[in-house]
Amino acid sequence: MRGAVLYAPGDVRVEERADPEIIEPTDAVIRLTATCVCGSDLWPWRGVDEVRDQPMGHEYVGVVEQVGDEVKNIKVGDFVVGSFFASDNTCEICQAGYQSRCVHAELMNNIGTQAQRARVPLADGTLVATPGMPEPDLIPSFLAASDVLGTGWFAAVAAEAGPGKTVAVVGDGAVGLLGVLAAKQLGAERIVVFSRHRDRQELAVEFGATDIITERGDEGVAKLKELTGGLGAHSVIEAVGTQESMMQAIRSTRPGGHVGYVGVSHGVELPGEELFFSGVHLHGGPAPVRRFLPELMRLIWDRKINPGKVFDLELPLEEAAEGYRAMDERRAIKVLLRP
Amino acid sequence: MRGAVLYAPGDVRVEERADPEIIEPTDAVIRLTATCVCGSDLWPWRGVDEVRDQPMGHEYVGVVEQVGDEVKNIKVGDFVVGSFFASDNTCEICQAGYQSRCVHAELMNNIGTQAQRARVPLADGTLVATPGMPEPDLIPSFLAASDVLGTGWFAAVAAEAGPGKTVAVVGDGAVGLLGVLAAKQLGAERIVVFSRHRDRQELAVEFGATDIITERGDEGVAKLKELTGGLGAHSVIEAVGTQESMMQAIRSTRPGGHVGYVGVSHGVELPGEELFFSGVHLHGGPAPVRRFLPELMRLIWDRKINPGKVFDLELPLEEAAEGYRAMDERRAIKVLLRP
Repeated sequence: MRGAVLYAPGDVRVEERADPEIIEPTDAVIRLTATCVCGSDLWPWRGVDEVRDQPMGHEYVGVVEQVGDEVKNIKVGDFVVGSFFASDNTCEICQAGYQSRCVHAELMNNIGTQAQRARVPLADGTLVATPGMPEPDLIPSFLAASDVLGTGWFAAVAAEAGPGKTVAVVGDGAVGLLGVLAAKQLGAERIVVFSRHRDRQELAVEFGATDIITERGDEGVAKLKELTGGLGAHSVIEAVGTQESMMQAIRSTRPGGHVGYVGVSHGVELPGEELFFSGVHLHGGPAPVRRFLPELMRLIWDRKINPGKVFDLELPLEEAAEGYRAMDERRAIKVLLRP
Repeated sequence: MRGAVLYAPGDVRVEERADPEIIEPTDAVIRLTATCVCGSDLWPWRGVDEVRDQPMGHEYVGVVEQVGDEVKNIKVGDFVVGSFFASDNTCEICQAGYQSRCVHAELMNNIGTQAQRARVPLADGTLVATPGMPEPDLIPSFLAASDVLGTGWFAAVAAEAGPGKTVAVVGDGAVGLLGVLAAKQLGAERIVVFSRHRDRQELAVEFGATDIITERGDEGVAKLKELTGGLGAHSVIEAVGTQESMMQAIRSTRPGGHVGYVGVSHGVELPGEELFFSGVHLHGGPAPVRRFLPELMRLIWDRKINPGKVFDLELPLEEAAEGYRAMDERRAIKVLLRP
């Protein structure tokens, strides 16, 4: 089959890779209907993370082609969505809602879903099937549920976005924008987005943002405080992962408020004293997308939300390299790849 | 009046200080029945925090002697307890339960309650009166409510201690021990204390601890994981404030679990990536003791809890210096001073 492999910073190639097979009896093999490039794929692509001739991609929707002997709930022919962590969904950690830290978790990045097919471990726990074959125009939204929607949703939940709350969003990439959508769905009263890109501001407003702040860092924080009676937001979503974005998120939060942080942390060191005296709640990490999949897939199936709008560029899988460049150069918010 | 002043590391003296007066019409002046030395007083006493000829102490119980013209609820003759932050208890932050970050908060450390009398700002918001004059044997417990009990309680609440939960406590000082008491009151199933001091272990067990771990750091974490099926505790109370104790707390917590940290942070830098992948909730800071005072004072008045047991040395105020030494050398858990 064809699949993307990263050989060196900036050098991603679509080439022949071995067809996936059932290895464990709990595995499934799916044929991908769509896959995409994640903001976090840009870390190794830019050389910030180590690169080691690795298959790329961890987001996926598709149709089940084979299942192992022990797979009971997922059937050949199902249209399925899964998270970037395979999880058994039965262990104590999964049952508490932290499937991304399942005691048997496997990272789909190691499998590489920017490909025609993929093996999905722990299929019964990992995959959620739609009630039937979705209309083609829903595919981008289901694909978004696989990571960026689930991640933005988790950030909004971790930030305790809800009725009566002012929510601020640091990061105007796909995850931040879908954090806006999540905050809106969760009933937030006011949603403030830090953004200086017109196309992203427009999508943010479409998803439910009520205010845009173009300033960044401490200037952005000062502006947010002006909007919130000097107190800061109740809930802040952090969707970047840098020192600056984390400090902007913490400083934007009122005492006793909540930061939900989902930007994969790179080189961040949180100063203990400032954090201590900030009095905020901090929660985040790799989103347990699986927790939210049934609810999110229902909202998509019922056409209540349209998270697929974050895909503003669609390319054949063969042109994955151009997809990486377009996202790196901010020519695209998020790139969908058709295998 | 007599009061304690810190002149240089290790040099605390009880000397004549100006009698407090009503400055703002919302002030009260109290005559202290008892005061004490806090673990956090040892930071400047040891020279870790800057020292600047400062009056010391922020914990207090006593009888109201004067009130300003605008004080409505607190009356002369009331026996009162207050927190180490004066707060109006009416602003949006106070109403959300974060009185230690009240928009009008004033730190009682700047007033110095290791003294015969003290001015208490925002008396109606800050002070809570008992139903009548307490029996003398209850004084230590009410004094504990002023900080260490309220702080340990906040840590347990921040860590979401409760029924069915395993709670671990890092730090066997007065706050950690009262975190044990709080976890027990909140219904925790299992309470594990990290301690290597026999007297503190005994008090921990008396307060409700079910397990003691004598190892520290990563060895302590490994031991805790053995006790919890490899997962770690649901809830971890951090009551020290060092790099080692914070990392021990974070690493002791299962994914999705909660760290409640109340040790005043000194030189801590939290590594972003480890925190991100830990998946824990982090919440803490200066405890909003005022939130819990009515409930805690009721439990003490009704003799349901006996937090005053953490005071294992009582001295006249004049001997405050010996109190600091006894705590620094761990000859005492906590020292009560009688003005």
